[in-house]
Amino acid sequence: MTELITPAVARRSLPDAPFLVAARGGAPSRVPVWFMRQAGRSLPEYRALRAGTAMLAACFDPGMVTEITLQPVRRHDVDAAILFSDIVVPLVAAGVDLDIVPGTGPVVATPIRDPRQVAELPALAAEQVDPVAEAVRLLTAELGGTPLIGFAGAPFTLASYLVEGGPSRNHERTKALMYGDPATWHALLDRLADTALTFLRAQVAAGVDAVQLFDSWAGALSLKDYREFVLPHSTKVLGGLADAGVPRIHFGVGTGPLLPAMRKAGADVVGVDWRTPLDQAAAAVPGSALQGNLDPAVLFAGDEVIQREVARIVAEGRAGGGHVFNLGHGVLPDTDPDVITRTVAHVHAHTPTR
Amino acid sequence: MTELITPAVARRSLPDAPFLVAARGGAPSRVPVWFMRQAGRSLPEYRALRAGTAMLAACFDPGMVTEITLQPVRRHDVDAAILFSDIVVPLVAAGVDLDIVPGTGPVVATPIRDPRQVAELPALAAEQVDPVAEAVRLLTAELGGTPLIGFAGAPFTLASYLVEGGPSRNHERTKALMYGDPATWHALLDRLADTALTFLRAQVAAGVDAVQLFDSWAGALSLKDYREFVLPHSTKVLGGLADAGVPRIHFGVGTGPLLPAMRKAGADVVGVDWRTPLDQAAAAVPGSALQGNLDPAVLFAGDEVIQREVARIVAEGRAGGGHVFNLGHGVLPDTDPDVITRTVAHVHAHTPTR
Repeated sequence: MTELITPAVARRSLPDAPFLVAARGGAPSRVPVWFMRQAGRSLPEYRALRAGTAMLAACFDPGMVTEITLQPVRRHDVDAAILFSDIVVPLVAAGVDLDIVPGTGPVVATPIRDPRQVAELPALAAEQVDPVAEAVRLLTAELGGTPLIGFAGAPFTLASYLVEGGPSRNHERTKALMYGDPATWHALLDRLADTALTFLRAQVAAGVDAVQLFDSWAGALSLKDYREFVLPHSTKVLGGLADAGVPRIHFGVGTGPLLPAMRKAGADVVGVDWRTPLDQAAAAVPGSALQGNLDPAVLFAGDEVIQREVARIVAEGRAGGGHVFNLGHGVLPDTDPDVITRTVAHVHAHTPTR
Repeated sequence: MTELITPAVARRSLPDAPFLVAARGGAPSRVPVWFMRQAGRSLPEYRALRAGTAMLAACFDPGMVTEITLQPVRRHDVDAAILFSDIVVPLVAAGVDLDIVPGTGPVVATPIRDPRQVAELPALAAEQVDPVAEAVRLLTAELGGTPLIGFAGAPFTLASYLVEGGPSRNHERTKALMYGDPATWHALLDRLADTALTFLRAQVAAGVDAVQLFDSWAGALSLKDYREFVLPHSTKVLGGLADAGVPRIHFGVGTGPLLPAMRKAGADVVGVDWRTPLDQAAAAVPGSALQGNLDPAVLFAGDEVIQREVARIVAEGRAGGGHVFNLGHGVLPDTDPDVITRTVAHVHAHTPTR
């Protein structure tokens, strides 16, 4: 974990890429925009390509990952590509017995709830995610001037899948472990931090230009609990990438009160959902670059509303120390891809400041 | 809508009931506690009684509503009963074609998305909820000194069911209507405010001692959107009960930034989920009585954790202008009922202040 990251290939130099410039707090040539889940079910070409291939099989197939990651870049004129993957990919790679069941999500064969199971949780070795690294190499060769964002789930969100055994609305088993057996909890999250860090460092070594650590469900916690039970472990992941030379984005949903703590974990760019206006987020994490925060539902409300909301968010984003336009959560599967393309154009019609 | 509420029976006088004293900001004889969804699936006697009876049938059967409402009062020594009902009951009573499908939730035959449908949405007449009023009369005769809380869903949450056609994670159709056609949106919410108000006034007339307006999903909105699209309509409901002489509780999940607006809607008691500590909530709505806010997941974490969290919440609740102990959301179905009973005792072991 402590060895320096030596990229397998020289990292591309993209000094003018608007996404990277904004993420570093500079003055981009246009307002950069990408969309969480831009690669995926909203695109007919994705649905066609995925037909007959299971989600996990797709995530471990370098050619398929490459093609799926490129699809929205070809269509939408976005300023970054996001590696197509899933939050559970590093767990599967390490040997955890789980599957992604269509319509349900990840299902873990044996939920992890006691110290012995935590001790036996397999560690991830970088070579176990070689297919992902290979996809990164293929992508950087294809992407030209468009940066590629690497991807991992944060320890808390990974833990929730492992403890609940699958997706959960209320995270009751997860919280029962967290509150009831803090030693086991911290041991589990420490291991998952290693897993996420190994996964992200492998992506950096293969050439990604930025990373995003997703803590989808951190918003289920109060600030006090986040600080005690999650922050040290997310800090291990993001801190372990401090020498990587790439911007680190950290995002969760419903995290308004958590934003300062999430920045403190080591985020260069703080992702913000649609509930917190960006000027308010900027006041909470002064000087930080921000990412967000169009409500994904707005893409269903017609072009006039989209233009108005884009203008508002671009204006509010000027309060940040850099602004990467994005949704406040992932693209919803029923979103019309042509609407996404037009929204990107609306963002680009605004003049960047700073 | 404007006639005075004349209770069918003289309202019980319960001047010393701790729940009512705390809700009015006075000094209760003990820390009052009740739990959202205390009546329901966590209780084996509920599951036995409901076997073979559909949810909506149960909600319109006065004897069954009475028995289900009483079950947790008998078991747990709680300080209030909450009328067993469902958020969609007044819609069904008014003639909207919808059903509650086990494992799914409410399913609306024809989702409401255009002005004509809104205009044709049937209004609720008080006599259409006579079975509920009858249950209230039966309950007040049975409950002795325990107050009975009436119940309705708020306009936004009702609208989401009607527009989406059922439960929704992202409320995209609802928000598309809200942003894209504000005139139709406001017409819809105005009608739903009338529905909720008629339902609650019928409950008050029949003798409930307090009311809770649930806006389960208001936390999906930013404060700006809440103020513009929801607040006027929730204000119509709660304002329409200003003369009712009963405390008005207003609750939603994930509503930290919305608490001052929810109070302004006309709440005497502001319900708080587990994410916002009560002392912080008290600072946001100074002088208001508060309700909450134990994380329902804590009931899975063992007695020691429960005692610690109860003590913390009772202490933080002292910052409010009155504190009614509750969960930060409803009882989860898998909760051990004996744990609920012990939690009530833990709350009662603390000395009330004020």
